[in-house]
Amino acid sequence: MDKILRIDVGAEGGPKATAAPAGTYAGLGGRALTSAIVSGEVPPLCHPLGEENKLVIAPGLLSGTAGAQSGRISVGGKSPLTGGIKEANSGGQPSQVLAKLGYNAIVLEGKPTSDDLYKVFINKDGVKITQDNSLRMLPNYDLIEKMKKEYGDKICCISIGPAGEMKMASATVAFTDMELRPTRHAGRGGLGAVMGSKNIKVIVLDSTGMPVRPPKDPQKFQDANKRFVEGLKKHPVTGQGLPAFGTNVLTNILNEVGGYPTYNFKQGRFDGAAKISGETMAETETKRGGRATHGCHSGCVIQCSGTYNDKDGHFLTKQPEYETVWAHGGNCGISDMDKIAMMDFLDDNYGVDTIELGATIAVAMDAGLAKFGDADAAIQMIHEVGKGTPLGRILGSGAAVTGKVFGVERVPVVKGQAMPAYDPRAVQGIGVTYATSPMGADHTAGYAVAQNVLKVGGDVNALRPEGQVELSRNLQIATAAIDSTGMCLFIAFAVLDQPETFQAFLDMLNAFYGLELTGDGVTELGKKVLTMERDFNARAGFTPQHDRLPSYFKTEKFAPHNVTFDVTDGDLDKVFTW
Amino acid sequence: MDKILRIDVGAEGGPKATAAPAGTYAGLGGRALTSAIVSGEVPPLCHPLGEENKLVIAPGLLSGTAGAQSGRISVGGKSPLTGGIKEANSGGQPSQVLAKLGYNAIVLEGKPTSDDLYKVFINKDGVKITQDNSLRMLPNYDLIEKMKKEYGDKICCISIGPAGEMKMASATVAFTDMELRPTRHAGRGGLGAVMGSKNIKVIVLDSTGMPVRPPKDPQKFQDANKRFVEGLKKHPVTGQGLPAFGTNVLTNILNEVGGYPTYNFKQGRFDGAAKISGETMAETETKRGGRATHGCHSGCVIQCSGTYNDKDGHFLTKQPEYETVWAHGGNCGISDMDKIAMMDFLDDNYGVDTIELGATIAVAMDAGLAKFGDADAAIQMIHEVGKGTPLGRILGSGAAVTGKVFGVERVPVVKGQAMPAYDPRAVQGIGVTYATSPMGADHTAGYAVAQNVLKVGGDVNALRPEGQVELSRNLQIATAAIDSTGMCLFIAFAVLDQPETFQAFLDMLNAFYGLELTGDGVTELGKKVLTMERDFNARAGFTPQHDRLPSYFKTEKFAPHNVTFDVTDGDLDKVFTW
Repeated sequence: MDKILRIDVGAEGGPKATAAPAGTYAGLGGRALTSAIVSGEVPPLCHPLGEENKLVIAPGLLSGTAGAQSGRISVGGKSPLTGGIKEANSGGQPSQVLAKLGYNAIVLEGKPTSDDLYKVFINKDGVKITQDNSLRMLPNYDLIEKMKKEYGDKICCISIGPAGEMKMASATVAFTDMELRPTRHAGRGGLGAVMGSKNIKVIVLDSTGMPVRPPKDPQKFQDANKRFVEGLKKHPVTGQGLPAFGTNVLTNILNEVGGYPTYNFKQGRFDGAAKISGETMAETETKRGGRATHGCHSGCVIQCSGTYNDKDGHFLTKQPEYETVWAHGGNCGISDMDKIAMMDFLDDNYGVDTIELGATIAVAMDAGLAKFGDADAAIQMIHEVGKGTPLGRILGSGAAVTGKVFGVERVPVVKGQAMPAYDPRAVQGIGVTYATSPMGADHTAGYAVAQNVLKVGGDVNALRPEGQVELSRNLQIATAAIDSTGMCLFIAFAVLDQPETFQAFLDMLNAFYGLELTGDGVTELGKKVLTMERDFNARAGFTPQHDRLPSYFKTEKFAPHNVTFDVTDGDLDKVFTW
Repeated sequence: MDKILRIDVGAEGGPKATAAPAGTYAGLGGRALTSAIVSGEVPPLCHPLGEENKLVIAPGLLSGTAGAQSGRISVGGKSPLTGGIKEANSGGQPSQVLAKLGYNAIVLEGKPTSDDLYKVFINKDGVKITQDNSLRMLPNYDLIEKMKKEYGDKICCISIGPAGEMKMASATVAFTDMELRPTRHAGRGGLGAVMGSKNIKVIVLDSTGMPVRPPKDPQKFQDANKRFVEGLKKHPVTGQGLPAFGTNVLTNILNEVGGYPTYNFKQGRFDGAAKISGETMAETETKRGGRATHGCHSGCVIQCSGTYNDKDGHFLTKQPEYETVWAHGGNCGISDMDKIAMMDFLDDNYGVDTIELGATIAVAMDAGLAKFGDADAAIQMIHEVGKGTPLGRILGSGAAVTGKVFGVERVPVVKGQAMPAYDPRAVQGIGVTYATSPMGADHTAGYAVAQNVLKVGGDVNALRPEGQVELSRNLQIATAAIDSTGMCLFIAFAVLDQPETFQAFLDMLNAFYGLELTGDGVTELGKKVLTMERDFNARAGFTPQHDRLPSYFKTEKFAPHNVTFDVTDGDLDKVFTW
């Protein structure tokens, strides 16, 4: 893994690929690499869909190795949703495969000279780019079936659905899972629209004939990996909760603590929560012959994924994540799990971010377009997005635009990106992350829910402002580093709680690269990444005033605890003071 | 004129009006007053449609007097379109009438407690506010007819159409003209949506029984006014061009110099220009029994307004302004003057900004929704806005949102507001104003077209960056001051060219208020207004990066002169260094 593949989509005669040594980017992976390229090469004031923006797809530092949990991939660019820098992270197979093929990153750049659509095939022999207008407007599932027929089933794919082709600001970049289904998505920030603006429909990868990446010190690496896996297995979250119930284990927990945003962030508990909880979902999955425990990429030992079958036992969608179940469920007042699963499938198929679209539908419900709880109306709205009708175009542009278009005041966004499944009033630490992350409202950027609610890695009172700034700061730094390694963010539960697991993680990196990285080194990496990102955003016109929640979170009391978001603006401005 | 009328729309039992002395706002009028109230009382990060925003309607310092040209009115608030401070300026009768009634300003504030719609009636006896849901979704013309039946024909009105009720970001506040037609609009920035968010449909004014405001020194005032009128009459622009052909005299001029943005800002000349020029329009108007020379408010001596009849000689709309003819005409490739006039009428009737909507339709045409030149499709789009269909909601949200929703890169906006009828590449001075005005792209904020093209008040090469920053700075300062006096901005042509007319203008102010204002005092007033506005915007999160044109104006050459916008970012940042 020592070269960067650049595809100039504006080259004469069609897109042209050039691989070159990583150069000054050597030693960077995942988010550190995407943010370095975007921050260094993309003019911050450019149009996100224009010639000057780039789409960067980068496996992590440990992707393609035998290390557990190392299959996450980062996608970066200037976000069509936020106008700022964006790294969206996904599981699936392409991270491992791209790394084995020796690429640190794929960079799509330039401006197409025609409307023609292209597919890219990469294997051990090189890169082949082919014009293929027969792929136009294919949903992701159909597209992947077509790719399988063409390239066999040893492949994995990176693709966009119709939403990406239509350049919608909530469009995702899809990654296929171990079963070659387009179920994993770099969802946030509309990077699928950037891929769409480059007229690249799909990148097909085949690492047949390429070995697993060899560590500098194989013995030490193997030993560290073993201790790392043991640590993940013994921690209650990564060893029990997540494997048993998936991320949706959180529905009952968040509902219980009153931090579950219901009816477009109007209250913290949902009557229908039990019906859509992880516990109920796992039971249904098992009963119908689906899988409640499953990995989203090879090398995963946490196994928080799954498969969700319909009533007849046929595959409907992958096990929906907690945030998806919330977005299309409680936040819209919907408690029909089969319909939520259908929405998950449709989102994956059309290629739209489940969080953004769920939050958007709730805003549309507040605008009077449908009643809260009307699952069929919500499903119809997703079809409108897929078809690109005027209403679908609005919804596909995200919650902020939908709020603006329909004149709705209560729109839960920061930097134009919708808040996920944790109310910032009842979980004030996540509110600090929403407000200040360079990514816009993003729970994964600094998951203070761990300390605020789960009491993992610390204990900070969720309902009070005290301690939240320091907590979010430390988490944002750690996250930026982990997102650069290709490691699944869920290792943080074990790593934050168990010093020996953190050490095993460090040992893996050191054994693989021949480094002597300490905890301080990880912190430095995280700070470096955040600094690059914030520098880009500053040059794009972002100020401390953009590091704020919408003002109603400061005034509107949130039941059952009747809390407002009480972290002061002055304190928010201290998050990145280190 | 010594009191401010505040209407608390959130009062128990319905909106409640309270008049109080102007206090610290005494001595301010028009834009100086709206910007002082907005900057001082509205939290810059509030939602434009929320409780904390205010709609301020203020006549100018000389409104309600016997002074010529003093009937302009300012409307201010936080803009739903730009997110920044906004002053939108209009002609019509309400400025004179409101001033005679003794009000420095009407301020709509608070948040309605129900969905009920209200009308406000103000006369010499006071203020009466009545719930009237029969007005819901009435277009402006129908609304005014209803008000006439109810209150007689001595009234004038300030109102919103369906667009304002639907809280669209391009909604206007309409003001009736001397014929009691809703033809004059505070168009830019969507302040009609703010009025809509306060549930006030119409403010009916009747100044019967109230005298013209008396000057401190009547003789001096009368003498100054006489010299002022003489100056306006003798200047070729205000004495000949504008009265004869209206503002649309500019079509041929801008087309000739290659600065007429055609087909969504793709080229600087339009084949169909002659068909929609002011000369052709005036001829048609006269032939059909309309009026080519007419004033938009009592006291106007420039008479650049008019009436446009249909082929059968029936009133169709007021004489469309140059920017309207451009927006719905050349910019959309349309050269059918009757259809452009119909669009002008529909915009007035639904209450949407002609510039924003015309620019938006051109963006929609670039997105493939209709062909350039298809007038019927454009008219249909306006009806969609009026009906509030999903497509109409998109278009009514303005060019920036429409571009985002349809994934269009070439969107000519600054701070989210569409550029008017002068291309910033071929008229670089206006480009500096577009980029830097706190209002977003706005030709009236510093009309460098005067010196760049018309060669009035100076001569600065339109195609070169040299001298444009200083020019725009001086014009923005002068404009901010003039907009505070209630004077029509067109006095600037005569005032900038003829020192004696500028002196007459000063003498009018001094004689009326007993002041000893000099030219420096006017400059200080202008600087003070701009400083307040920029301070609000800074607190709302605006930075120098927001004082930029979209990047394609710097790279895409504009025919026939094949110019790009060449004023550097560094120079743009010097506009407000004084």
